[in-house]
Amino acid sequence: MPEEKLCVPTLLTCTAPVNIAVIKYWGKRNEDLILPINSSLSVTLHQNQLKTTTTVASCKHFKEDRIWLNGKEVDINHPRLQSCLREIRRLARKRHSDEENNSEKLNLSQKVHICSVNNFPTAAGLASSAAGYACLVYALAKLYGVQGELSKVARQGSGSACRSMYGGFVQWIMGNRSDGKDSIAEELHPETHWPQLRILILVVSSERKPVGSSAGMQTSVKTSPLLKYRAESVVPQRMKEMVDAIGQRNFEKFAELTMKDSNQFHATCGDTYPPIFYLNDVSKRIMNMVHRYNSHYGNIKAAYTFDAGPNAVIFTLDEDVGEFIELVKEHFPPETNGELFLKGLPVSKVTLSEELKSAIGMEPCSNGIDYIISTKVGPGPQIVEDTSRYLLGLDGLPK
Amino acid sequence: MPEEKLCVPTLLTCTAPVNIAVIKYWGKRNEDLILPINSSLSVTLHQNQLKTTTTVASCKHFKEDRIWLNGKEVDINHPRLQSCLREIRRLARKRHSDEENNSEKLNLSQKVHICSVNNFPTAAGLASSAAGYACLVYALAKLYGVQGELSKVARQGSGSACRSMYGGFVQWIMGNRSDGKDSIAEELHPETHWPQLRILILVVSSERKPVGSSAGMQTSVKTSPLLKYRAESVVPQRMKEMVDAIGQRNFEKFAELTMKDSNQFHATCGDTYPPIFYLNDVSKRIMNMVHRYNSHYGNIKAAYTFDAGPNAVIFTLDEDVGEFIELVKEHFPPETNGELFLKGLPVSKVTLSEELKSAIGMEPCSNGIDYIISTKVGPGPQIVEDTSRYLLGLDGLPK
Repeated sequence: MPEEKLCVPTLLTCTAPVNIAVIKYWGKRNEDLILPINSSLSVTLHQNQLKTTTTVASCKHFKEDRIWLNGKEVDINHPRLQSCLREIRRLARKRHSDEENNSEKLNLSQKVHICSVNNFPTAAGLASSAAGYACLVYALAKLYGVQGELSKVARQGSGSACRSMYGGFVQWIMGNRSDGKDSIAEELHPETHWPQLRILILVVSSERKPVGSSAGMQTSVKTSPLLKYRAESVVPQRMKEMVDAIGQRNFEKFAELTMKDSNQFHATCGDTYPPIFYLNDVSKRIMNMVHRYNSHYGNIKAAYTFDAGPNAVIFTLDEDVGEFIELVKEHFPPETNGELFLKGLPVSKVTLSEELKSAIGMEPCSNGIDYIISTKVGPGPQIVEDTSRYLLGLDGLPK
Repeated sequence: MPEEKLCVPTLLTCTAPVNIAVIKYWGKRNEDLILPINSSLSVTLHQNQLKTTTTVASCKHFKEDRIWLNGKEVDINHPRLQSCLREIRRLARKRHSDEENNSEKLNLSQKVHICSVNNFPTAAGLASSAAGYACLVYALAKLYGVQGELSKVARQGSGSACRSMYGGFVQWIMGNRSDGKDSIAEELHPETHWPQLRILILVVSSERKPVGSSAGMQTSVKTSPLLKYRAESVVPQRMKEMVDAIGQRNFEKFAELTMKDSNQFHATCGDTYPPIFYLNDVSKRIMNMVHRYNSHYGNIKAAYTFDAGPNAVIFTLDEDVGEFIELVKEHFPPETNGELFLKGLPVSKVTLSEELKSAIGMEPCSNGIDYIISTKVGPGPQIVEDTSRYLLGLDGLPK
């Protein structure tokens, strides 16, 4: 029938960033709504290096909602996916009923196809779910014409996804309400706020699959007395100090708080019963190297932070990033050559001084680090105009 | 002169045990008096496997106080050694002045020679200072005829030494007084209280010298918010629960508290800035193996605890110790043969079931554990009657 042949899907593509928390989120007070036991604060990483791309399509001929992740169709009935879909559709319905004359309204009974890819390996241990859910929610909201505060929708996919809804420096305010409406992310400063800040991801070799963060934080909430204390009595003050440090671009204060908070998060994992360990011996060597590097200069020039895995994320200022990378190469001699070892933003070559090398005084550890991703602070989710980058074709299937 | 030739030293020899804390001591509220920020509780290990032997000698011809540790003369002016010597002499003077007619009083102006050896390698990472100071204080007290509560003297040598002044199950009550007079150890139960309890020390290979415990706990007290909370709000309740569990010989409760408290101690080390790590990847594999072993049976049959180093101390009941050792051999295949791998108390041979092996499901890790010391709960310090075991000769010098 001619009418049916003319019907092509409405297609829309977005990208969203990864974020790295400097005040860590660990523990939910409500598992379904994903409400955290403390506020957290993150830096959004630049999408030139790390991003999720998601294409959404809607068409009256689609028989069911479907989703493809990194080239493979997966079950759309995952509860958290369903939470996001349901919530966006609810907001869309609400908006359409508010604006009765909306001419461009999308038929809400139409099914969607979703296709999403990361430009970084899942094995890199980066929080791909944060970028993934942020991208999904952003894209669906654009598709359905939903506006307003969307971080609370992304939060229901994956807690930290709410922070990937913004660029720059982002806080996730824990909120108090039991319905979660005040548990939202907000941008403290855009990505242009602190242009000197550089970020390195040190991808650590690891054969072991660590405990997933959802299960991990659930056990921690149940069993760790220290986590409860951290959430209630340590984090509120740290949030304030971190907001100040970032506001003033005070690198030393920012760096110290970042390291302390990463350490405290891992301490609460160790206080969990049975204990959870995300840091391995290479992670600890990196930490040790950072502390010795800072000691050598008598001020803090680099900071580490670790999420639920052994990979280090390092913050430095641009004047020091070249030296720090040489330090890594010196102490973790790469198997591959330098070009493959360092990915992302280019870094100027620096020669390490002998004093610095001997001040560190650590034996080199071969092959401990697989590669480094060099990046910086970046913007929030973006719409992709170029249709050649769309992941779904006009047939609504992955290209 | 004939009179001088006749003067031979007064000689006395004692032994003292190692103890392992199940509620950990970490942090001082007074560095000089060695007053802890929380109470702690330990099990005294049997001296048939691990002990310090100390001979003390006094003679009017000795020109100065001297000390030999493990075959090497060391500086007697170490502040903590001096604290113990000074305190014992003060108590001796007090006693002598109280009992004016004391005919056997030792001339307090006479110098002492001290010679001390451990029957276990320092490299084993066992708290040799606890046994060492306990032995020193016990021997000096006998030499000077000092009686009464001596744990507060040993405490001034090394905090945990006060717990090595008793056998069996010992608590160190933190006390409140600023002069430390109420910070003493006391025996809760003698070593005969729980004859089924078995103890294994898994000596883990380690190339790194960890941060010393005195320096470590000082940094923790200064920098870890979690340590303060632990000491004030977690330990008091745990002490009560542990006293109950031991009183009732409730192995599951004892084991769970032991593991949780070890984990929390290491968590506070990780929350220290810069962080302190005593557990290495092998330590964590052992912990993982213990949890999987317990899971397999659905009840707790083994517990680990770790002090300021990577070695594990394992508690089991005698009916399970053979199986646990086979489990260790299976997952940490020794380089040496079985005889050299297992030292100390003999253990009956057991064959592991295939179900158990597959329930553990871990890859074997070669050479992670150097050897095992098999022991049990033991008595407190002892006097050695056999003069052939004395460490100093009649010339007052090491034999």
